[in-house]
Amino acid sequence: MKPKIRTPFFEIGTKNYVYGDTVLEYALAAEEASKQYDIDVLFTLPVVEMRRVAERTSRLILIAPYMDTLRPGRGTADILPEGIYAAGARGVVVNHCEKPMSLPQIKATIERARELDMLVFACADTTAEAEALAHLHPDILNPEPTELIGGGTGEVSDMGYVAETLRRVKAIDPSILVEQAAGITTGQQVYDFLMAGSEGAGAASGICKAVDPIATMYEMIAATRRAADDLKKQGR
Amino acid sequence: MKPKIRTPFFEIGTKNYVYGDTVLEYALAAEEASKQYDIDVLFTLPVVEMRRVAERTSRLILIAPYMDTLRPGRGTADILPEGIYAAGARGVVVNHCEKPMSLPQIKATIERARELDMLVFACADTTAEAEALAHLHPDILNPEPTELIGGGTGEVSDMGYVAETLRRVKAIDPSILVEQAAGITTGQQVYDFLMAGSEGAGAASGICKAVDPIATMYEMIAATRRAADDLKKQGR
Amino acid sequence: MKPKIRTPFFEIGTKNYVYGDTVLEYALAAEEASKQYDIDVLFTLPVVEMRRVAERTSRLILIAPYMDTLRPGRGTADILPEGIYAAGARGVVVNHCEKPMSLPQIKATIERARELDMLVFACADTTAEAEALAHLHPDILNPEPTELIGGGTGEVSDMGYVAETLRRVKAIDPSILVEQAAGITTGQQVYDFLMAGSEGAGAASGICKAVDPIATMYEMIAATRRAADDLKKQGR
Amino acid sequence: MKPKIRTPFFEIGTKNYVYGDTVLEYALAAEEASKQYDIDVLFTLPVVEMRRVAERTSRLILIAPYMDTLRPGRGTADILPEGIYAAGARGVVVNHCEKPMSLPQIKATIERARELDMLVFACADTTAEAEALAHLHPDILNPEPTELIGGGTGEVSDMGYVAETLRRVKAIDPSILVEQAAGITTGQQVYDFLMAGSEGAGAASGICKAVDPIATMYEMIAATRRAADDLKKQGR
Repeated sequence: MKPKIRTPFFEIGTKNYVYGDTVLEYALAAEEASKQYDIDVLFTLPVVEMRRVAERTSRLILIAPYMDTLRPGRGTADILPEGIYAAGARGVVVNHCEKPMSLPQIKATIERARELDMLVFACADTTAEAEALAHLHPDILNPEPTELIGGGTGEVSDMGYVAETLRRVKAIDPSILVEQAAGITTGQQVYDFLMAGSEGAGAASGICKAVDPIATMYEMIAATRRAADDLKKQGR
Repeated sequence: MKPKIRTPFFEIGTKNYVYGDTVLEYALAAEEASKQYDIDVLFTLPVVEMRRVAERTSRLILIAPYMDTLRPGRGTADILPEGIYAAGARGVVVNHCEKPMSLPQIKATIERARELDMLVFACADTTAEAEALAHLHPDILNPEPTELIGGGTGEVSDMGYVAETLRRVKAIDPSILVEQAAGITTGQQVYDFLMAGSEGAGAASGICKAVDPIATMYEMIAATRRAADDLKKQGR
Repeated sequence: MKPKIRTPFFEIGTKNYVYGDTVLEYALAAEEASKQYDIDVLFTLPVVEMRRVAERTSRLILIAPYMDTLRPGRGTADILPEGIYAAGARGVVVNHCEKPMSLPQIKATIERARELDMLVFACADTTAEAEALAHLHPDILNPEPTELIGGGTGEVSDMGYVAETLRRVKAIDPSILVEQAAGITTGQQVYDFLMAGSEGAGAASGICKAVDPIATMYEMIAATRRAADDLKKQGR
Repeated sequence: MKPKIRTPFFEIGTKNYVYGDTVLEYALAAEEASKQYDIDVLFTLPVVEMRRVAERTSRLILIAPYMDTLRPGRGTADILPEGIYAAGARGVVVNHCEKPMSLPQIKATIERARELDMLVFACADTTAEAEALAHLHPDILNPEPTELIGGGTGEVSDMGYVAETLRRVKAIDPSILVEQAAGITTGQQVYDFLMAGSEGAGAASGICKAVDPIATMYEMIAATRRAADDLKKQGR
């Protein structure tokens, strides 16, 4: 069964900033923070560390950064969906800007993920791309519409674009969860994005390139908790 | 330090024929056969199972079927050399026919492997391609020159092409180990190839699609032992 | 200035079914039929024949099957937008199923086409993909949602899917012209699609693989004329 | 019949530095200089201008910067070998550093070129790559082994690397013509490379980015003539 995600959620991506034991170290910290603040945490990590992290954590929802669409058989260098699922992946990223995909490839990846009850986490570079991808019905959409941010001139405009992107995606498919992850480096930004309506927030370089990655992770997950509480108080 | 390989050696590739626990099961059997027959065994497996297999085996030389050439950092869907090395890979395949590479990409992959003291296992579709790749000095070359096999019409011609390919590769770089893996399905073929001069033999589908893959693996590694003994008797 | 297209229009694609003089021969016939029936004809042809066809025709709207997005400079094997425009191309295909593109590449190609006042002719494999692409605002959308055709079981359902696709695309951007080109082999099909609401119809293999390609071209353009007249009578 | 090339020859590549009428202008100048100095000139140009240049010149040997390997049929965005041949191409570049190819793709392109009696002009980034490609037997090899040039520290070492590359390529296949084109911006460099043993010299940016491209072209072709005469005097 596809994992259920309670909102607001938090997502951590290690990309290839770290490898080996450090991936596990980050995952264990994320697991602990997830428990401490009772927040659902998605953890995106290289497939090579998937199994070890899965064996040592129980709360994290583990996401593979990519998979191919082949079925068991040949395809020696491909990432087999069944293989990463067996290792513990419960979701997969499609169309990350560092691994852009054609529409037929996105569609095929989504279909393979559906077969295995894996979550689909889709990335979009622009609002138009986010709307486009919404028609393919991913579970989570992570739009990073840099063209609307206006040079990061201030929080108000940022929050304006968040609301606009949300509105447009939900108009196409209200069941898609929208996450903001563009340029987040502090807990306060996490809080602001969530209060502006995003159902999730996330960070990759914001954590991995921080002076203290694990403290930053805790700060952001704590901010997610604070937003969860305040949203509840507001009856949202 | 780059692993040393005693010849004749045997190589097993699981491709994506199997995944999850079955990969470990095959690896444990290969480890056991390697010990029983005192033969060096290269085991090529999906990166997602690399760490678990590395933790449970000590004799196998583990080979990744592919890696990218990025350095730690961004590149969310890429296979990081340091990442697979940390998980236990001690070699990498380049230019597998199911993942063809450009010459600059092959060269860059070899350079990254050299940095990490990983073995380079290069594949070639034809004799000309094998000669071409020999100039890039991989540790092992696996030529599958189907155009010379002539429909697999018989052992004599097969052995003729083995000798010819060996001669051509060694003329360019005598330190390259040459493996034959094309179409091997029996221990007898392993024996014949090794007696004809190949320094290694290997199988992927020949094992994974066999009625009893583990028995076939043992049969082939036993044949490698037999060839090792007979080569020694002949003073080769 | 971007070419204006009068609807209903007809589109011919030669793909690589023909080359050399035959491309010119087909283009001259299309030009003649376009004039005879007073129908706007889009003609998609290999870039290598673009200039010759442009020099010998005046009514055809010439479409390149692909272009890259580089600017004048290096990029020795790329198709330069300014280069095909100078040769006579007034439009470009994006995301043909035989050349699938990532969303960022589609977006970049559309932006380059806009700079040069070239028409954008986008292809989609499915209705969802057509909706996705509508958010990128091509001039013409050619959806071939094979999953809805139901094995080509009959005209009623075919026409049902045409109407549904039209409705969905127009809901996103009513200015996009929708063309049907999937599996058209007769003038009657052209007529039926146009009467069902498509603003254009087209054929590639339906013409190039016909027993008499030029006669088939005339038949289809004549059918477009007939539809134009009947739509006018109906006040549509 | 495949064009015969008299040595020393000169090669001009326009890449995408110029387009439209300028390509023709350069080609006509190259044709005139070829005639004036009685030197064989290879002219590499975008396929979109191939036919026009072919119709207006008779001495130039026209080279396409790339082709696909499909046969007439589908493949709407591909460059069909028969299509560029019909337009006048008599050769094709393989493995340009701006369009790297896998070994199987290089091999397939060479086979298609052979079918059509087209020259194969192969590019290599390094000496090792040049040796590798020599095993695939192109007609012309253009090695640009930047790692050996040593920062362009002077003519002596440059000429040392030219001789070494020549020696290595000829050891594999003496019938391959070796061209030097790396960093040539003056006629004197053309002369020096040819006197050092290269059978051809060439320039792309060295001409297209010159203050006066056509004068530079003449200067280089004149230098080729001068080298031809001096080589003859020396009985080489």
